[in-house]
Amino acid sequence: MDFLKKHLIVLESALEAYPELQRSPANLYDPIRYILQLGGKRLRPILSMLAAEAVGKSGEMALPQALAVELFHNFSLIHDDIMDVAPIRRGQPTVHIKWDTNAAILSGDAMLVLAYKEVAKCTPEVLPAVLDCFSATALEVCEGQQFDMNFESQLQVTEADYIEMIRLKTSVLLGCALKIGALAAGASESTAQHLYEFGCNLGISFQIKDDILDLYGDPEKFGKQVGGDILSDKKTIMMIFAQQQEAFRNALAEAKQLNDSDKVTHFQQLFDVCGAKAHAEAQMDFYYEKAIAALVAAALPHEGQINFKAFAEYLYNRES
Amino acid sequence: MDFLKKHLIVLESALEAYPELQRSPANLYDPIRYILQLGGKRLRPILSMLAAEAVGKSGEMALPQALAVELFHNFSLIHDDIMDVAPIRRGQPTVHIKWDTNAAILSGDAMLVLAYKEVAKCTPEVLPAVLDCFSATALEVCEGQQFDMNFESQLQVTEADYIEMIRLKTSVLLGCALKIGALAAGASESTAQHLYEFGCNLGISFQIKDDILDLYGDPEKFGKQVGGDILSDKKTIMMIFAQQQEAFRNALAEAKQLNDSDKVTHFQQLFDVCGAKAHAEAQMDFYYEKAIAALVAAALPHEGQINFKAFAEYLYNRES
Repeated sequence: MDFLKKHLIVLESALEAYPELQRSPANLYDPIRYILQLGGKRLRPILSMLAAEAVGKSGEMALPQALAVELFHNFSLIHDDIMDVAPIRRGQPTVHIKWDTNAAILSGDAMLVLAYKEVAKCTPEVLPAVLDCFSATALEVCEGQQFDMNFESQLQVTEADYIEMIRLKTSVLLGCALKIGALAAGASESTAQHLYEFGCNLGISFQIKDDILDLYGDPEKFGKQVGGDILSDKKTIMMIFAQQQEAFRNALAEAKQLNDSDKVTHFQQLFDVCGAKAHAEAQMDFYYEKAIAALVAAALPHEGQINFKAFAEYLYNRES
Repeated sequence: MDFLKKHLIVLESALEAYPELQRSPANLYDPIRYILQLGGKRLRPILSMLAAEAVGKSGEMALPQALAVELFHNFSLIHDDIMDVAPIRRGQPTVHIKWDTNAAILSGDAMLVLAYKEVAKCTPEVLPAVLDCFSATALEVCEGQQFDMNFESQLQVTEADYIEMIRLKTSVLLGCALKIGALAAGASESTAQHLYEFGCNLGISFQIKDDILDLYGDPEKFGKQVGGDILSDKKTIMMIFAQQQEAFRNALAEAKQLNDSDKVTHFQQLFDVCGAKAHAEAQMDFYYEKAIAALVAAALPHEGQINFKAFAEYLYNRES
């Protein structure tokens, strides 16, 4: 993925030199600096820069939008980690653990405002469309997080509910990153919208892949504990499918009673036999194909399309 | 204040019919509906509408900006109430008490995004300036809240620190409300900026008045417990002034040891004798005069200036 590297270098130096972090009081900005330097794949901001490049401009033209997307993503991580009582993020203590809940709330708020400051750095002609997309997405991400929390206590979650939840919580931000990057670089509304659909469907496919990897990933390559979703009784696409299979209802109930060490292996077999794994893979492919169709419809110059295709394949084939 | 009433009616019906609150999931929007219907004086949004009227347009022209300011203000109340562990707001349970902290965090986040959606509803020509002011203000309000929290554990707080804190936490939003209302109605950058200064200085004067009322208010008119700041050991402008008076240092230390019922009366006398009350009143007047000077500099049509003058006098003379 060499074509990503130059964008990553530009992005990392922009984050490093980000002037807003010099403001006072320092302790409001310390957690923001901290989470930004924890790293991550930076997939979302890179998408903004790739989109600008794909429509024939330099990636730098969408750098403010790339920063906005990364700031927004990290704001949502800080607040989600409080709500999910998560102690660890990227191998380090989460903000509410390293500082406290108040610091995590307020620094997150400031980070959301900083995201808006960045996203608005585009020509006045495209500003209304950029803002529309960014605000619609930001609201949907909040809604996705609320649906996800609701699911924990909800007895009946359908696959449609689940797909809608991951679309809101995860996927729309990928679509938004592409769309606002393209708009900032002067793309047509139509190209920008097709790129949005590409990102959104790729995001759904990406999240289903996540569910599959969580249970079937190679422990040496996955980087996290395999079976985490099973152990925390998460309603993944495979679990929802399995629960709908009358013939496996008893087996499923029994498997949930097992101790942790047997549970993961047992569910691996069960989801295989009842067709849940195959179903998840088919859905992953379905959204992947939808993504590729939207990419083709975006009618990008050849190189832009090649790059996005390579990006999509990389996500599709990843093992961690 | 009859000239406010028509704006208040328009604003209240817009809040009542606010379409975004019909979105899903309902439980994300319930806390937003709840805090908005708790009421309050709605001073900030009214300022946006007054500003539009003062520059010769209808107040409705700044209705989206008025809604944005009210949404932002209530977002900050929801999050501040978590941080301050406040159980009651406007006589009712705070959001994090009525629901829980997670609901308060996430609904607050959604409310901040909704504020941005509203504020952007203006002509493309003024959108960059409106957004600049709104984002700068939003960030400053976060900084003010952080300074305020820092002061609790900070041994030395100067009067300059204190004035800067209340400027950020409270006053800039009044300035912003006026400025973006004026800009949305097509005012010149200069008029809008003078109105900003008017609001900002009026806000500082307003907050100092709050400190004075908290200790010297008429219990029958004040509506809250008189002496709340003293009992919670808050660093108000009067406390900061008193602490700097060498001659009263011992008296101050002794007064802090008193039981609650004697404490308030004792501090009323102490702040009177040491000059803290008179100093606070002088500072309140100083910022009030600065506000009026900025109002004059805004060079508004006669009626606009008269209305704002009446508004300022109402705040200056209020007893609750």
